Amino acid sequence: MTDAVAIELLADRLRRAGEHAAEQGTDVLFLTPGTDLRYLTGFEGSSHERLTCLVVPAAGHRAPPALVVPSLEAPGLAGLPLEALGIDLVTWTDGEDPYLLVSDLAGGPTRVAVDDDMQARHVLGLRNAFPDVPQSLGGAVLRELRMRKDPAEVARLRAAGEAIDRVHARIGEWLKPGRTEAAVAADIAEAIVAEGHTEAAFIIVGSGPNGASPHHDVSDRVIEAGDVVVIDIGGPLPDGYNSDCTRTYAVGGEPGADVRETYSVLQEAQERAVAAVRPGVTAAAIDRAAREHIAAAGHGAHFIHRTGHGIGLDVHEEPYIVDGNDLVLEEGMAFSVEPGIYQAGRWGARIEDIVVVTADGAERLNRNSRDLVVV
Amino acid sequence: MTDAVAIELLADRLRRAGEHAAEQGTDVLFLTPGTDLRYLTGFEGSSHERLTCLVVPAAGHRAPPALVVPSLEAPGLAGLPLEALGIDLVTWTDGEDPYLLVSDLAGGPTRVAVDDDMQARHVLGLRNAFPDVPQSLGGAVLRELRMRKDPAEVARLRAAGEAIDRVHARIGEWLKPGRTEAAVAADIAEAIVAEGHTEAAFIIVGSGPNGASPHHDVSDRVIEAGDVVVIDIGGPLPDGYNSDCTRTYAVGGEPGADVRETYSVLQEAQERAVAAVRPGVTAAAIDRAAREHIAAAGHGAHFIHRTGHGIGLDVHEEPYIVDGNDLVLEEGMAFSVEPGIYQAGRWGARIEDIVVVTADGAERLNRNSRDLVVV
Repeated sequence: MTDAVAIELLADRLRRAGEHAAEQGTDVLFLTPGTDLRYLTGFEGSSHERLTCLVVPAAGHRAPPALVVPSLEAPGLAGLPLEALGIDLVTWTDGEDPYLLVSDLAGGPTRVAVDDDMQARHVLGLRNAFPDVPQSLGGAVLRELRMRKDPAEVARLRAAGEAIDRVHARIGEWLKPGRTEAAVAADIAEAIVAEGHTEAAFIIVGSGPNGASPHHDVSDRVIEAGDVVVIDIGGPLPDGYNSDCTRTYAVGGEPGADVRETYSVLQEAQERAVAAVRPGVTAAAIDRAAREHIAAAGHGAHFIHRTGHGIGLDVHEEPYIVDGNDLVLEEGMAFSVEPGIYQAGRWGARIEDIVVVTADGAERLNRNSRDLVVV
Repeated sequence: MTDAVAIELLADRLRRAGEHAAEQGTDVLFLTPGTDLRYLTGFEGSSHERLTCLVVPAAGHRAPPALVVPSLEAPGLAGLPLEALGIDLVTWTDGEDPYLLVSDLAGGPTRVAVDDDMQARHVLGLRNAFPDVPQSLGGAVLRELRMRKDPAEVARLRAAGEAIDRVHARIGEWLKPGRTEAAVAADIAEAIVAEGHTEAAFIIVGSGPNGASPHHDVSDRVIEAGDVVVIDIGGPLPDGYNSDCTRTYAVGGEPGADVRETYSVLQEAQERAVAAVRPGVTAAAIDRAAREHIAAAGHGAHFIHRTGHGIGLDVHEEPYIVDGNDLVLEEGMAFSVEPGIYQAGRWGARIEDIVVVTADGAERLNRNSRDLVVV
């Protein structure tokens, strides 16, 4: 991330973050290790009880940008383009109070924002260092940048989609009667890494009744012929951008009419939601497009989560495709469209694609068949 | 974690957490997924933009204990002994405001405490739901329980120490001239899991100049004969308790007199610090025992971090063995003793054992030789 192009990109993001902060009346952003920090500096760091904090001044605020790090971390930062980005490196040593150090660097802010992912120990540490300064969430600023993917980011999400599609295409090799969910998941995990991900960040293999639990991960349940199985998998590529795709499989032959009818309702709902995606419509409208079709078929009570979530450096980020979210979609926004129907105690189904808003509609980044695949 | 003994243990921890909260003037603790939640319920959960929150009332406060979870997570909690622990399960659905739900359950607290690991998005969400109620850190309460390991916890830390000692005993198989740090780390990672850890949570292979960066992880640097190599490794066992052990190795023969002399200063400093451990002395005194010996040898400026950290369900937890920490050690407290000497740009060395405070001294949980091991 330290070639000239990358540095220019990061410098531009830092500048725009400062401008959005100023527009929102925030004097300084405090970012701790995580994806916001990676987005602005190329350095993700690792969350820690020791404070690492990027001080990002709003446009026009007097403080210079600074990265405050424990002195023992400093040698590991030699590769960062801090000087090129005009960021001062400030170290502190065990026993010092890093929050007072930050307050010395912040230029007397009247309002500050903290990283959405910042640990409470640091949120309260900074609050004590600025006792009379209101804190808000930095996400309100960062979302203005991160929600809108540039073409390079879209290309990275596209590559992630292709990688996870290659894994789903091979599910039939592993998903067989007599095997446990855990055994199937182990094969999937290996393939996720083999296809270029740095890790298998999440693997849901929800067979039979477990499929009715949307966030079930895996268990020792033995898969049987006739099971409907929800498989929701993904993870980050080395550039940090994530894949996330769900398909539902029928094991050992065509399922019964009840399953086929319910599944076709789900498939049509997912189609309608994707078809509704275009610039100018709200996130809530996409959720509604899926939910109304499912409700009309009598399954409203069985669709127990939002329709989707944004994706990028985080698997879940803005925009959230949920009732009440009046955010107006713009070209470059990327998110999942993943309605599900869950029959408690019996089975469940979900279909998930990542889509990117284009000039006049949506591009799907997951291309495998959305039919109920019989394996 | 759901047999009768475990439930009794968890119930007792919940009760004591409530008592310590009351003593500290906190009416309610709010705990989010992480090790505090696991310590009190056996359920760690996973951090998430959706709020999962255990409401723990102080002794005598009117609110009942409650676990607030997104409805889509609820099916996965079927195995939890919530009823046996007297914890109400309360679910919320996407689109609802979970913070208002928590405020309805909290019984009108006048002071609340939040999990040290809670994400800022939730800290501020709860603050907005209790606009006039001061927030403090729940760690001040939980530390009173978690710092003092019971015999079962000590047995788990002992097993973790034995597991990581078995890995260090095999370093000679992998640490050879001509191999990269990354290649050596890959072999170590496999062995860490093979020895019973659920993952290789951290692996530092700091060869030559990289050893002078205490938190260097691994790189593509090729190890050369004559290198001094710091190897700091560990991870959790399935019960959640962590190992963490550092040894320093000399590759391809005896190092020069300069290295041997400096290393012997470090080794003596680590011995003195461990010898100083007993009930009634302060954490700061243990730090001083190591630091003063290193400073007397002229290396004070080369020991750039605290002497140690507590360990348990977290790799880093209280008590911190650092200058200024007047905490008085008690039997059952477990922490690392890990002084280091770092020669910027040249080499570094660190020796780390986990120790548990006994009735009259300390038990080391890492037993391998602390000499500079030649491989």
